Amino acid sequence: MQGAAKGLMMTAPFSTFGALRDMMRTLPQADADAMARARARDAVLTKPPGALGRLEAVAIWLAGWKGVRATRVQIAIFAGNHGVVAQGVSAFPPAVTAQMVANFRAGGAAVNQLARQVGASMVVEAIELDRPTGDFTTEAAMTEAEVMAAMAIGWQAVDVGADLLVPGEMGIGNTTVAAALACALFGGAAEDWVGRGTGVDDAGLARKRAAVTAGLARHSGREPFEVLRCLGGREIAAMAGAILRARQLRIPVVLDGFIACAAAAVLARAAPGALDHCIAGHASAEAGHARLLAALDKEPLLSLGLRLGEGSGAVLAVSVIQAAVVCHLGMATFGEAGVSEG
Amino acid sequence: MQGAAKGLMMTAPFSTFGALRDMMRTLPQADADAMARARARDAVLTKPPGALGRLEAVAIWLAGWKGVRATRVQIAIFAGNHGVVAQGVSAFPPAVTAQMVANFRAGGAAVNQLARQVGASMVVEAIELDRPTGDFTTEAAMTEAEVMAAMAIGWQAVDVGADLLVPGEMGIGNTTVAAALACALFGGAAEDWVGRGTGVDDAGLARKRAAVTAGLARHSGREPFEVLRCLGGREIAAMAGAILRARQLRIPVVLDGFIACAAAAVLARAAPGALDHCIAGHASAEAGHARLLAALDKEPLLSLGLRLGEGSGAVLAVSVIQAAVVCHLGMATFGEAGVSEG
Repeated sequence: MQGAAKGLMMTAPFSTFGALRDMMRTLPQADADAMARARARDAVLTKPPGALGRLEAVAIWLAGWKGVRATRVQIAIFAGNHGVVAQGVSAFPPAVTAQMVANFRAGGAAVNQLARQVGASMVVEAIELDRPTGDFTTEAAMTEAEVMAAMAIGWQAVDVGADLLVPGEMGIGNTTVAAALACALFGGAAEDWVGRGTGVDDAGLARKRAAVTAGLARHSGREPFEVLRCLGGREIAAMAGAILRARQLRIPVVLDGFIACAAAAVLARAAPGALDHCIAGHASAEAGHARLLAALDKEPLLSLGLRLGEGSGAVLAVSVIQAAVVCHLGMATFGEAGVSEG
Repeated sequence: MQGAAKGLMMTAPFSTFGALRDMMRTLPQADADAMARARARDAVLTKPPGALGRLEAVAIWLAGWKGVRATRVQIAIFAGNHGVVAQGVSAFPPAVTAQMVANFRAGGAAVNQLARQVGASMVVEAIELDRPTGDFTTEAAMTEAEVMAAMAIGWQAVDVGADLLVPGEMGIGNTTVAAALACALFGGAAEDWVGRGTGVDDAGLARKRAAVTAGLARHSGREPFEVLRCLGGREIAAMAGAILRARQLRIPVVLDGFIACAAAAVLARAAPGALDHCIAGHASAEAGHARLLAALDKEPLLSLGLRLGEGSGAVLAVSVIQAAVVCHLGMATFGEAGVSEG
């Protein structure tokens, strides 16, 4: 994986945090003219103005990036393991990360079924599962080179022809990691961000809070990519790389739950507007997610009580985005249909 | 249409309100054993318990009716015109009802695009558009025979082989009608239930409230089917007939917005549990809908600010229901996938 990662890095226009920060100063912006054209079409479709609610806003937002289409959807799932599981923060053993990767590859996970429903392709990148990150309560999770290698894997995984990207993840322990990241990036106390993840009991919840508190105490006052290095994980760095690559390609991104949003949050704190090409797919039942969405100023499309990760909530939201597209492209105008305007 | 309706009534096991009330005393109930089996399967699928949120509850609920499937989806759209439009309650002229029916038939409306997305079939029944109901501010909207004829059209329209039914509607003026029905069925004042519909201005909103207040004053203290007769409309009666027919066939129903829920509310008030086979597809932006959903004790799947009718919000929700089905049927169990349980 190291060798592969090194090879991929040649395609990413950064190999240090400094280069990454430089690159993020000139991100592609939404195409205001294309959005105005989509808004003009929306206004003459056979419906009262605004009657399709968020579907209208979604179509206009898509127009600003790759265009009003959502046929070629890519799900990119990244998996990583976490040293902090030594603190007893998960209801499942870390072996489950690799077992679920096998399940993704065999087509048996929730995200596989949801992917098929929306016609999405899926790529699964298991990143050094046998080499967990450092336990952030006692050391930095990663080195700068490890972060860059993981980001490069994410960068490289993106289908350049995709209409829409869904970054997903698997990593036992990573709601603790996401909570630590969110806390370091946006402030507040551990208990504001820590939830039950896959379903820890009260004692497990207390251990998660203690771990996050310890991690924050050890790694304070860092800039966003240093936060990612000290408290993050490889699958989270890879998601950040994929989201950034999508931006470079003008591919809109559907954010999944707490962990995907924590990855996105690193970019948001590194450069204002870095998530303009991202929409929040859903509000997770994981405790910190609503707060994280608010911090990112993202309103979720769905709120169905999911807390699974894998990109599952975002893939569900792809149906809504596809609905916005088919309405925008397929509906008749008042003129075409001979329907009187109000 | 009269002749056709009379023919259809032979297939409906009621031709008077009395017979209808009798028939509603013995509605088919959910299959508790099938639900228990679905719950047992859900518990061993490769995800933490509860991690698919409402998708899990939806699959188990489906199991209790026709089974965990949502492939054959039928949208049944009913259209009617309303005498109360004489009170200036809509931003659109009544001619738009027939124009939109033509648009449905030509495939140009929002619901057509959404139907195609979920693979749904669609039937459109325009019910005596050239003969609006009576203006309920001055007379009863319909006779009992007219209500029964419209209900029979709804009853007959249901595909007996459907896995899922979405009743939808079109009828200029019908948010006013739905508000009057909701107010008569659940109490409160006109302003609790009246909203802007397709987008009336403040003066139009005041006219809607005045019309509902006048209708309620004229037709007070009625049982549910009498409320439907005095204040309702043909498309609303037809939706009620379709929802009831679906119950008889154990076909689960996805409720759309304010008007579809007003039709359902007539049944709910006529017999407790009459809507056990119904799920709320979405929360409409129409003002009274949230209150109506609360009165029906239904939690919507989606909340995307739609206020279009046509069944559109419910058809969007079909994607979520189909997602619940494919996850329930397609996911591997812990045992099959070799994934450790927590």
